[in-house]
Parts: sequence; structure tokens; C-alpha cells
Amino acid sequence: MSAQLTKPVSAGVRRGLPSGSKRAAAESFEKVRKTSERICGPLATEDYVIQTMEDVSPPKWHLAHASWFFERFLLIPSCTGYREFHPQYNYLFNSYYEAVGQRHPRPERGLLSRPTVEEIYAYRQYVDQFMLELIDAAEDEKWLQLEPLLTIGLHHEQQHQELLLTDIKHILGANPMRPAYAPPRERATGAGVPAGWVPYPSGIAEIGFGGSGFRYDNEEPRHQVHLEAYELAGALVTNGDYLEFVEAGGYGQPQHWLSDGWATVQEQSWNAPLYWERMDGRWWVMTLSGLKQLAENEPVSHVSYFEADAYARWRDLRLPTEAEWETAAAGRAVEGNLFDSGELHPRPAAPSGDEPAQLFGDVWEWTQSPYTAYPGFRPAPGAVGEYNGKFMCNQFVLRGGSCATSANHIRATYRNFFPPQARWQFSGLRLAR
Amino acid sequence: MSAQLTKPVSAGVRRGLPSGSKRAAAESFEKVRKTSERICGPLATEDYVIQTMEDVSPPKWHLAHASWFFERFLLIPSCTGYREFHPQYNYLFNSYYEAVGQRHPRPERGLLSRPTVEEIYAYRQYVDQFMLELIDAAEDEKWLQLEPLLTIGLHHEQQHQELLLTDIKHILGANPMRPAYAPPRERATGAGVPAGWVPYPSGIAEIGFGGSGFRYDNEEPRHQVHLEAYELAGALVTNGDYLEFVEAGGYGQPQHWLSDGWATVQEQSWNAPLYWERMDGRWWVMTLSGLKQLAENEPVSHVSYFEADAYARWRDLRLPTEAEWETAAAGRAVEGNLFDSGELHPRPAAPSGDEPAQLFGDVWEWTQSPYTAYPGFRPAPGAVGEYNGKFMCNQFVLRGGSCATSANHIRATYRNFFPPQARWQFSGLRLAR
Amino acid sequence: MSAQLTKPVSAGVRRGLPSGSKRAAAESFEKVRKTSERICGPLATEDYVIQTMEDVSPPKWHLAHASWFFERFLLIPSCTGYREFHPQYNYLFNSYYEAVGQRHPRPERGLLSRPTVEEIYAYRQYVDQFMLELIDAAEDEKWLQLEPLLTIGLHHEQQHQELLLTDIKHILGANPMRPAYAPPRERATGAGVPAGWVPYPSGIAEIGFGGSGFRYDNEEPRHQVHLEAYELAGALVTNGDYLEFVEAGGYGQPQHWLSDGWATVQEQSWNAPLYWERMDGRWWVMTLSGLKQLAENEPVSHVSYFEADAYARWRDLRLPTEAEWETAAAGRAVEGNLFDSGELHPRPAAPSGDEPAQLFGDVWEWTQSPYTAYPGFRPAPGAVGEYNGKFMCNQFVLRGGSCATSANHIRATYRNFFPPQARWQFSGLRLAR
Amino acid sequence: MSAQLTKPVSAGVRRGLPSGSKRAAAESFEKVRKTSERICGPLATEDYVIQTMEDVSPPKWHLAHASWFFERFLLIPSCTGYREFHPQYNYLFNSYYEAVGQRHPRPERGLLSRPTVEEIYAYRQYVDQFMLELIDAAEDEKWLQLEPLLTIGLHHEQQHQELLLTDIKHILGANPMRPAYAPPRERATGAGVPAGWVPYPSGIAEIGFGGSGFRYDNEEPRHQVHLEAYELAGALVTNGDYLEFVEAGGYGQPQHWLSDGWATVQEQSWNAPLYWERMDGRWWVMTLSGLKQLAENEPVSHVSYFEADAYARWRDLRLPTEAEWETAAAGRAVEGNLFDSGELHPRPAAPSGDEPAQLFGDVWEWTQSPYTAYPGFRPAPGAVGEYNGKFMCNQFVLRGGSCATSANHIRATYRNFFPPQARWQFSGLRLAR
Repeated sequence: MSAQLTKPVSAGVRRGLPSGSKRAAAESFEKVRKTSERICGPLATEDYVIQTMEDVSPPKWHLAHASWFFERFLLIPSCTGYREFHPQYNYLFNSYYEAVGQRHPRPERGLLSRPTVEEIYAYRQYVDQFMLELIDAAEDEKWLQLEPLLTIGLHHEQQHQELLLTDIKHILGANPMRPAYAPPRERATGAGVPAGWVPYPSGIAEIGFGGSGFRYDNEEPRHQVHLEAYELAGALVTNGDYLEFVEAGGYGQPQHWLSDGWATVQEQSWNAPLYWERMDGRWWVMTLSGLKQLAENEPVSHVSYFEADAYARWRDLRLPTEAEWETAAAGRAVEGNLFDSGELHPRPAAPSGDEPAQLFGDVWEWTQSPYTAYPGFRPAPGAVGEYNGKFMCNQFVLRGGSCATSANHIRATYRNFFPPQARWQFSGLRLAR
Repeated sequence: MSAQLTKPVSAGVRRGLPSGSKRAAAESFEKVRKTSERICGPLATEDYVIQTMEDVSPPKWHLAHASWFFERFLLIPSCTGYREFHPQYNYLFNSYYEAVGQRHPRPERGLLSRPTVEEIYAYRQYVDQFMLELIDAAEDEKWLQLEPLLTIGLHHEQQHQELLLTDIKHILGANPMRPAYAPPRERATGAGVPAGWVPYPSGIAEIGFGGSGFRYDNEEPRHQVHLEAYELAGALVTNGDYLEFVEAGGYGQPQHWLSDGWATVQEQSWNAPLYWERMDGRWWVMTLSGLKQLAENEPVSHVSYFEADAYARWRDLRLPTEAEWETAAAGRAVEGNLFDSGELHPRPAAPSGDEPAQLFGDVWEWTQSPYTAYPGFRPAPGAVGEYNGKFMCNQFVLRGGSCATSANHIRATYRNFFPPQARWQFSGLRLAR
Repeated sequence: MSAQLTKPVSAGVRRGLPSGSKRAAAESFEKVRKTSERICGPLATEDYVIQTMEDVSPPKWHLAHASWFFERFLLIPSCTGYREFHPQYNYLFNSYYEAVGQRHPRPERGLLSRPTVEEIYAYRQYVDQFMLELIDAAEDEKWLQLEPLLTIGLHHEQQHQELLLTDIKHILGANPMRPAYAPPRERATGAGVPAGWVPYPSGIAEIGFGGSGFRYDNEEPRHQVHLEAYELAGALVTNGDYLEFVEAGGYGQPQHWLSDGWATVQEQSWNAPLYWERMDGRWWVMTLSGLKQLAENEPVSHVSYFEADAYARWRDLRLPTEAEWETAAAGRAVEGNLFDSGELHPRPAAPSGDEPAQLFGDVWEWTQSPYTAYPGFRPAPGAVGEYNGKFMCNQFVLRGGSCATSANHIRATYRNFFPPQARWQFSGLRLAR
Repeated sequence: MSAQLTKPVSAGVRRGLPSGSKRAAAESFEKVRKTSERICGPLATEDYVIQTMEDVSPPKWHLAHASWFFERFLLIPSCTGYREFHPQYNYLFNSYYEAVGQRHPRPERGLLSRPTVEEIYAYRQYVDQFMLELIDAAEDEKWLQLEPLLTIGLHHEQQHQELLLTDIKHILGANPMRPAYAPPRERATGAGVPAGWVPYPSGIAEIGFGGSGFRYDNEEPRHQVHLEAYELAGALVTNGDYLEFVEAGGYGQPQHWLSDGWATVQEQSWNAPLYWERMDGRWWVMTLSGLKQLAENEPVSHVSYFEADAYARWRDLRLPTEAEWETAAAGRAVEGNLFDSGELHPRPAAPSGDEPAQLFGDVWEWTQSPYTAYPGFRPAPGAVGEYNGKFMCNQFVLRGGSCATSANHIRATYRNFFPPQARWQFSGLRLAR
């Protein structure tokens, strides 16, 4: 469990001439940066400081780290006369870049009361000001060089926005008082739809990123794969579906579980998804709006790969591969319950014609595909690209984004990945056969 | 390593009629309560929240726990119509009283961002107001009953004031930025005095508390012990003295160490007292005023029993027993560099005639006496007295108070105790032979 | 690290009518059973008892467990009047079959001095006698039912023969006296051959088992994959090749390693393959014939996936996928330095025309393929097939067998698998590009 | 938990001229040496090899270590022309003597299959032969020098004889088959006697060794202590007495336990003494003769200090101090159920007049005294005396010997000591008030 959980955002790729003007870039920059701060708006100062498990980082660390990225990879190399805001911040806010020096140990991020939250906001402001000056002053040639790094930095910050939300949820959820992050939002309460099966034929498919625009390098190269005929469920597995597994005693029956999964269930005393709790004969679930009763028609969330896989076996079905998922998602519009909806919670499925519903948003969908290199993949050189393939071991691919993912950050070829025991993300599943 | 580190203050004893009037009691109450808040004055909100090791509690926890004590043992039983400030605070702020219900695990005190610092100050104010009303309204008979509990509660809070200071030091000392708690204070910089030997004769001595006034029950009963003739060093061991041991390679030589001590040295990679660090060829030491150069004439502090004992063996000398120490301290005025001086750091010894200097204040003095029951000791009944003898195992007695101990909290018969590996207190040593 | 390391041998498949007569089956049975005992011939009684790490089992456990398999899955269900040899052996010698009851914890296999080695040999004899009677007495219909289970049981025992050898090596290698298992054997000392590249074209390939005869179910179904053009090294990586990586400081440079691999290197203080040690300025290596000097032209062995992968990255090359390896091996004769040669140590490559040398035997070859289900794979029902897919998580596929694998146990479609940190098997690598 | 559990036998003291002739010494030597081998007589080879927890050593290790002591401290320094039996045995069989070089880690003693048991018996024979020659050939002056070391070596071996028995019990007791070490022996089955109280007056007592003959240095110097009046129970606490505590739920009630004891109860899931097990509604206990039903009139054994202390608190009584115990035992004959009786199991108390029964033998009696230095104690110099005071931390004193202690090894001033959680020795308790 470790550094890899903050993803190697560094390995983004942006070929060709910059399509956006500098003005548009500056606007994007300001918008993304403000979004991070807006996410932290409801927090008390105390919420910014603690680390409730090794995977979680204190919110103030996220705010500082995203700024450190711009300072380290843009301002220091490219901004003449720039002075680091503080000489120790490189040590404190580097996440896992071995090439840029020693760093503070990840499990000790919650042992730092200083710098204070106020100081970190000052750090952000300082970096923002220099970044905007840097963009403004860049000559054409320099801009060609800066723009891809800027784009990576913004996608990096968007990834940390999702982590901010899931880490805040964990910080508040670990508190016996179960405080709410934000008041519940008025939501359409659809009744859900029956999850019919959508068939796909056998044959050669192409997957991987093949167009223009931003993508991470793990999405390339585009390549051919051979698929057998398969079917995908028309909707995500719901709380109600999953509750049947729980109530049938699934967490006590080794036969459904991977061997490592069964060991984890026993060591961690798992008996339901993360954030579920049983009180007074009913099931409750911690949300970003505090405790609420389990809604059976909502997609199940906060399950690990082990749980997703065990559930599918128990149903005598399976998880899709990432190639199957991507083939289904290719060409579909990126629409759904994403961060932009503001709901911050998965919502029941709505009818979707002949196509699978909920492909984008709500919850990340575990696939049965281990996270590996596409054929012909080669890591990019240098510190920003240091870790392209570094996490290709003991992780599984998730697809489609969640209710905490920005719409302009996700796409059909996007490969997220987590270890099979991780479950503090908005992670759920769709069945295949 | 555990709950026992917050001492069983509960077991205080106060016999006979209350000598002070209710007014005096109310004044004491207000003074002690304000002192805790004054100690926290220089903290940033973030400093209140974290727990840098299991022994340390977040400052906001100390503030709440000391209030919980008054709520639980005085207001709830005795104040008609009192309503608990919050239904979950009994769970969150109980330290180790098994008789009053389940409690939040000690190692997870730093995982609570809520209640906020502001809410805890409101809790204190609420408790203070009801306590003052309770004192004011108590009839004579009730007051006879309340006054001993009030006295215990205030001594309890004074103990936590010392822990607040040592925990704050640890929280700031664990931060790579080494922030200061308070600016350094002008101090007399005595040159120290040579540590001559003060002889004491053989014979029967009496130790333990035998007068009137407040004492913890572990100081009783007063009883006879037989002492061989001995000598005590006239002053505490200094940084300079101890540095000779460090530089002679003492931390690499098993022959000086207890077997468990040597194991600890290797496991923890100890090579000097806590808070010492070597930079640029010189020794520095973290203090409540930040990093400063090691002053050789100051008493060594933040050593464990293992280190104190190893140092004494290396000098071919030994630590005193608690009976030897108490015999020397009996009848001496409680004067020295205590919390009341405001220095919050041990100071060099000043000449002291024929008597040992520095008996009170500066640093707690490790004795070679394991913490055990005095002959005839019997635990008091009930929850407040629940744990009288509960910690009499694997701990050693320290005597004399430190620069973080209030003058009206310490006395010649006072028995402090910590496990032999603990060293985040202001703990040092005096040699004997 | 756990039970999965004894492979799910249970999932073998044997369709159609039995081709061999009962006499041939009985002969195979006796031959395989005697081989296990012959492997243990050179052991002292003491060597049978201990467990030097969790992955290792005591040799006497292997001998008993392989017998337990026949008792549990053949004798008890099918042999009328059979009485278990001992009522507690089912508890003691079950490996990981959840469906057949509680079992002794794997990490405590070395805490059992009883049953004695002599008793276990008596157990084997008892089982052998009843097995031969069962085979002899089986009517045709019953034989049709028994024969596949018998075949699985023999393959199971062959797997444990390889584990016996690697576990014995670990037991003797962990002893500071470095005792030899057997005297060194006269060996041809080829000079090795240059590892040229063998090219393979792009296109659709078929992999997986598709013929008749025994196979494990994870080799099925046979299916199509799309391969890009690739090249395989003509020989295994040698000690000399790998030594360059060691001497270039590869174990101290994070950039070559997977993130989890780098963590393992640091936690375990790895600085060379298992069994390498540096003394008097030279490299030595523990073998089944005791310590000998490192031979540069022999294949490197006892490296983990992490090390194989890091080495390949350092050479700016990669490991093959299992599909690439199998495509190269398809149709090749199963010939090489296998258990049957008796050498029990990898040997230098000999020229091999235009084909890759050393595909079978010497060392298992790590591939870059995580161990997953082939498309359409479905676990078989029942206890013997309980765990078909149970280990498909956090493991990588190895191909080709080693000098400890029986020739009649290996084939081109055989999929071995171990976690990426495992290295006590004869595991090495071949480069691809 | 560690090296200290093999006691610092090295620190024995033998002043004045040797009283015994060399012939008597040689006879003692042979007798003690043969006793160790006789103890191991019933073992299977496999029983000699394993280590069921860190405190336990494999029997073959004890046999070799006791020989190593003679080799290292007598033969190598004093026997001209002596050649070490094996160059690596000093590394393998040193227990905790830092001054005589590196040593094999204690927790890995069970990972050594070699040297074999046969080789260790050859080692013993080799050492015995040279020892007898050394004794025989020693001139007077040399003999004066050798005799004390020889005496220490024999007492050392006697200590290991007791450990051999308790370690064998643990090795067999950890085996689910619960094998017997030896057949049960015909025993007098006394009905036990009521445990009346024996009073002792207040005053100055003298404790510690003060005569001639062998003693360990921790028994010196003899010194005065002041005792209040006290009473000792006339017999040991029995299984029946203790069963009341178990059945009253004592293992689930924190109020009886030391804080560290309660933590241990929970971590280790203790619910009765070691070796007790409940089957079919009855209590059974593992003995050196295998499982037998709990006999209520036998002394309780295999309890830790934590359990002894909790039991005494539950009875509203206490454990004696070591000074109280020694005062009662002074002048009494060393008689009781010791190793020499051959019973190897505690027996019910027999009437004993006005004196406490069972002071010697049956079970070691926990006292409430932490193991500390007597006033004026000073460690002896040199490697043999290296560790005199090394274990004076976190251990409690036990007195009186057990059914596994040789009669000529125990005396009224003998101080045994173990950490408060240890319970694999024959340790029980007597109450005081």
C-alpha cells in the first residue's frame, strides 16, 4: 500500500502544436486551481490536517502538492528569477518522484501540523501569480514547451481533486460522530432500471488512445485485440443486488473469493462494503452528506476488486475486461453523474435505450484486467515521465470515472488502477458474461 | 505502551475537614483551568489536532479530557439538572477508566478532526460555568463530599498541563521545520557547579506521605525502610557529562546496557537523547523555543531509564533508589526551576551549600526503583480510585518534578513513573554511589 | 504470501476414455511415489522437520500431503472398508482445500515434531498398498471415474517433487554451515552461446491446450490472440549478464524497478539474487551441492519477477508475454536440462540452430503476463476443482520448467505462476523486444 | 521477550578453597552431563529440532549450548592443545554473551537442521573427554582457578535441564496430537490440605546469601530489610482454587488485572492457564504424560505473573515479597517434589505442621518483587560475569524451585526471574496478606 496510490499523472502526452491560445490556458489554469479550493470550502481547519490511513493524504497536503508540481516542473526550470516559496517544501510535498530528491514519508503526512493551512493557501497564491506571469510572458517557442507541462499539471490537479473528495470522505467517515461534509442535495430519485444484457460480437477490436488532445501515456499505443463475443449488463450493480450477497453470507464463504481476497476479508474483518454499518436492524451508509439509510436502487460503491470479483462469482458471472468495456464505451458521449453534477454520490440508473447505462460517472467500474503495458508501450524519459510503467504490478484497471471525476478529465480510453484491496474510492462494478 | 502514560490521578486522598473555603476553591479552579488555556495560547489550530506517537495526545484531547473528568465525576453525579454537553464526549474523552464505559482507542486520538478546537473551548466554558455554580450552591455536607473530588480534578488537570507541554514539544519536534512554541526567554546563564558528593548515613528511614494536605494514594502508607550509607551527586548530570558518553561510543557498546535497553537502542536506532541532532559537525537540541546549540552546562534531559542506567554504569556509578532520594529531599523547600519560572527548559545548576542542588524542578530524576506498592497499600474502591495499583509493573519511579511541573503540584513524596523506554518527558538523572 | 504457493493442482482435466491400461497406471503410480522418496534419500531426519520461511514446507509435510491427496480424494470415497491411517492427518496435511475441513496453519508446519518421519513413511506405505489394491480391483466403470483423479494425484505429487527440491535447497541454504544435499555431478561445461535474436511475425496466434492428454484447466480454453511482431533472445540471461547489473549498482537505483519492487528491495535488503554471497572479493552461490563459485556462463537463477523486470528495463529491453513464449515453444520437443538429467542445477546454453535454446528446463522463465483466466475459462465444480481460479491475482506466469521439473510434467502450454517477490524457485529470464 | 530467558548463570560465585577433591568434581561432572542426556532419552530425533516460540530452544540447542560453555570458558583457555570441535559452533551455540562474539539469532534456533542430533552427541562426548582430562591433569594452582568455573558450568547445565523439560513440554503441547513425553508415574494422590495462614512478626530481617558454597552473585550481598508483620498461606493455590476465578469470569473483568496484564489477556486471548483446555464440558490439562483431566487438589501451574497477581487481587489478597518468602524459608530443609522425585508434575499438598508446606518444589512461586539489585551489588568483571545485572528490568522474582528443578540446585536464597507474561515454566503462587 503506498506511493503508487497517487497516480503517475506525470506521464501525460500532448503532441502537435498547442491548440489553445495562452489566454484559454490561463483561464483553464485559474478554473482548475479555484476548483480545488472550492472543494475544501466546507472544511474546518482541523479537517485539513489528519491522515486516517496510509492511502489517505491530509487535504492540505493535496493543496500543497498540486502547487509543488507547478513550482517544480514549470516555475523553477522556466521562470527566470523565481524563488522557491519555502526551501523545505520540495521535501515535504514531493509525492514519489525519486529523481527530484528525498521526500517526507507518505505514512507521516498526518504528523505535520505546520505549515498551517493559511500558509499553504499563501503558497498557492504565490505559485498562481508566478504561473500566470509565466504564461503571459512566454514567447512562442517557450510556450510550445510549457503548454504540455501545464496541461499535465492541470490534469494532475484534477486527479487530486477526486482524491480530495474521497480522502475527505474517509476523514469524516472515520470519526465516530460521522460529520457531514455538505448538506444533502436535492436529487432525482429514479427507481432504477432492470439490468438487461447488451451483446457485442466477436472479432478484432482496436483499443487505446488514437486521436489528438490530452491522454496519459498508458493509454497508448492504440492496438488490436481479439475479442470473443460477450455481453455487458445494462446498468451497474446496485446496493440492493449487493445486499443479497451480504445477507446470503457471502463474506463468510471462502468459495467465492480469490485466495488473497479471503485472507483480506479475515484480516480486516470485512462484512460489507466500506461505509456500510448496521444499526438498529437497518443498514446505513456514510456519505459526504453524513449517515443515511442505504438506498437499494443506487449503485453499490466503495467495494474492492476482491469484493467485486467475489460478487460476480457468486452470481456465476464475471467482470468485463478493459478491452470489452472500452469497446462498449467507444464513441459514446461522456455524460453521466460526474463531479460537475455536484451530487457527489452515485445515483440510480435511468433508462438508456439499447446501450449500457452509467458507463461514465457514478462509480469507477472494476475490470478483470490487471494493469499492464499495452504492446509497444515505452516509458518517456526524464523526471516527469519517470514512473510511466512503475505501477504495472498487482493493480487492476478501473474504467469510466465516478461522481467525483471531472467531466473534462475522463474519456473512453482512460485507465485508472488500484490494488485489489483498495476501496476508499467511489468504486463499483458492472457484470459481464 | 499505553493508557498508563496518563497517570492514575484518580487515586488522590484528602482526609479531614476541608481547610479552604469555597471561595478559595473556586479561585483555584479558575486559575488552574485558565492555565491550561494559557499553555495552548501560542498554538496554531493545526497543532491541536495531531498525535505524533502513541504516547502523545493531541492538545485538544487534553483540554477536553480534563473537562470530561469534572463532567463525569462531579457534574453528572452531583449537579441536578446538568445535561451532558455532547452525548459522544464520554466515549471520546475517557482515558482509561474501564468502569465508565467503552472509550476511543488511544492510538487513534490523532484521527479525529472533530470536535473542532472551537467546540472544545465551548465545552470547557460550559463545564466551567456549571462547576462554579455547583461550588457556589453546595451545602456544607455536599461540599465535604465534593471538595476532595474537586481537588483531585485540579491535580489531574495539572498533570495534563505538564503532558500538554511535553506533547507540544514532541509535535513540533517531529516536524522537519522544527517550529518554535515560544520565543526564547532571557535566562540567567550560570556556569554550573562541580557535582560534589553529599553523604547520608546508614539506618532506618521513614518514607511516604505522612502529613495533611493532598497526596496520591501511591505515596501512602508512610513506612520504614532500612538504608545503607550512600552519597548523592550535588547536581544533575549535564549535557556535557552525557556528551562524553555519546562521544565515547556508549550507544554502540552493549556492556553498559540492560538487555532490554540494548534491544531498544538497536530497534530504535538511538544514538543520543531524544531531540539531539548533529548537523555540520555540531550538536543541536530541539527546545520549546526551537533548535538551539547544545549547552554543555545544562542538565541532560529527554533520556530514558535505559539511557540513565547505562550512563551510570559507564561511570561505574549508579542511580539512587527512591528512598535515598526522598530521604535527601525530606524537609527541603520546594524550590527550583519549575513551570512557574516560565523558562520551560532546564537550567544550569547554581551553588547550593552542602545540600544537593536541583532536587526540585529542571528534570524528573530517574531512580533505580521499580514502581511498586508501599507495604500495606490498598487500592481505594470505585471508579475514581479504580486504577490505584494498575500500573505497578514494568515502570520506574522518577522524583522531583521538572521545568514543566507546577510548584504546587510537586512534593518530596511525589512518585512519578514511566516505562524504561519513555523519554519524551523532561527526564534526566542524578548519580549515586 | 500464502497457501497459494502450493499450486491448485486439483484443477487438472482429463477427458475421454482412459488410454492407458490399469497396469500402466499402477506402474506410473509406483514410479512417481518412489521418486519422491528417492529425492529425500540424502536427507538427515532433522532436515525433514523444519520450515525456514512461510513459503517453504518441511519435506515430511510434502511426503504426507501428497499421500493425503490420494487418501482424501480416492481411498476414502472409493475404497470400501478403507480406514484413515490416522484421524488427525486430514487436519495436519490438508493444504488449502476449504471444502474438506479445517486445517493446520501453513506458517506452523515447522512446529510439528510429530508425526515422525518414520510414521510418515509408514503412512505412505499404507496408502500405496490400498491404492494399488484399489486400482487392481476397479471395475471398468469405476476405473473410468478413478483414472482422472489418479492422474491428477500423480501430477500433484510431481509438483511437490519440485517443491521438495527447492524447499530442501532453502533449508540447507539458510544454515550458516551451508551443507550440501548431494555431491556435485560431473557436468558438461559448455562455454555458452551468444544470445542472438529470433524474430516472430505479427498476426493472430492460438494459445492454450488443444489436444488430448493431461492438462490443468488453466491451460484452457485454446483461444486466439493478436500478436505484434517480436523477437526473443536465443538464450537465457546468464550469471555474467546479470552480474553486470549488480556491479553497475542496479540494486541501488530506483529508476529500474517497479514501485513495489523497489519497496521490496529496501525492506529485504536485497543486493543480488537469492543464494549469491560475496566473500573474499568473489561471488559464491549456494547450490544443492553446497557453495560454489559463481559460473558466469550459467543461466541466472533464483531471481524474482521484480529483479527479472528491473534487469530487462536496465538493458532497455523487456520480458516476453506468455503468448509470445508459447508461440515460440509450440511444436518444439520437450527437451532440456530437466529433473531427469539429475544435474539439479542450470547449465550453460548449447547452440540451437535458428531456434531459441533452453526453452524447456534449466530455469522457469518469468513472463510479463499477470496470471489471469483465459477467455471463457470456467472453474470446475467440487472440492478437487475448488480453487481453479482462486490464485488469479497478484501473480505472474512463468513458462518452460526448470532443472527440478520432470520431463513428463511440462509442456508448451503449461502455466506456472508465483507472486512477483518469490525467488526460492529455479526462476530466471529470457529477454524480448 | 528474549535472550534473557536463559538466565545469566555466569554470575555464580565460589569463594575460598575448593572443598571437594578433583575426583568428586569429576563425578559431579559426569553425573550432571549424563542427566541432560537422560532427560532427552524419550525424545524422537524430530523433537530435538524445533522451536515452538521464541522463548523455547530446540533440545539439541540446549545440549550443544551447555557443552559450548565448557568449551568456551574452560577448554579453550585452559586446555593446552585443545582444538574446537567445529569452527562454527561458537557462532551457533553462544546464547547471549556479547563479549565472545557474534551469535546466531535466538528466534532462528529452530531453523537449523544441522548439526544433526548425532553430531551434537558426538560434540558432547568430545567435550566430556577433554574436560575429564583437564580435571585430571590440573595442578593445584590451576585447579583453584578451574574449580569455580567448573561449578558454574554445572549449575548452568542444571538450569538448562529445567529448561529442557519445560521446552519439551511446550514442543509436545503445541502439537495437536498432544503426544506424551513419558508414561504417567504412580503417584501418591493426597487429598490436599486446607491452606491456613502462618504468621510472621514485624522487624528487621536479613536476606541474601551469607554462608559458603555456591550461589549466584544476584543473591549477594546479604543485607537487612525492614518487614511489617505478615502471613503466608500454608499451601500453594490449587487448580480448584484457580478454577473458581476462571469460572467467575476473571479473564473477562479488567478490574482485577494490571493494565499491561489486561492488554496481554486480550492480545493473546487468554482464558485459562497455559495447557488448560476445555473439551466436552470438562477441563483437561497437558502434562509431560499427555493430556489428563484437571485435578483440583494439585497446585495450579503455568500461570504468568499477571495471572498470579490478578488471582490474588480477586481474592482481595496479595503475593508475598521475596523478603517475606525468604524469611519463611530460611533454615528449612530443601525438601519437596523436585526433579529428583521423577514425577515432573506438581503434587497435592501434604500436611506440614505449623510451617508453610510446598516451599520447595512443585512450582516456582511468583513474588510481588521486581527483580533488582540488592544494595551494594556490583557485577563481576569479564565475560563469564558479563551480564550480572543485565536483566534487572521488567522481570519479577520467583522462589522455591519446581518439580523440574534439581534438589542440589535450589536454596532459600535462590532468585529466579521471568517477565510478567511468561508462563511456560512450572510457575504458580502462594498467597500472602
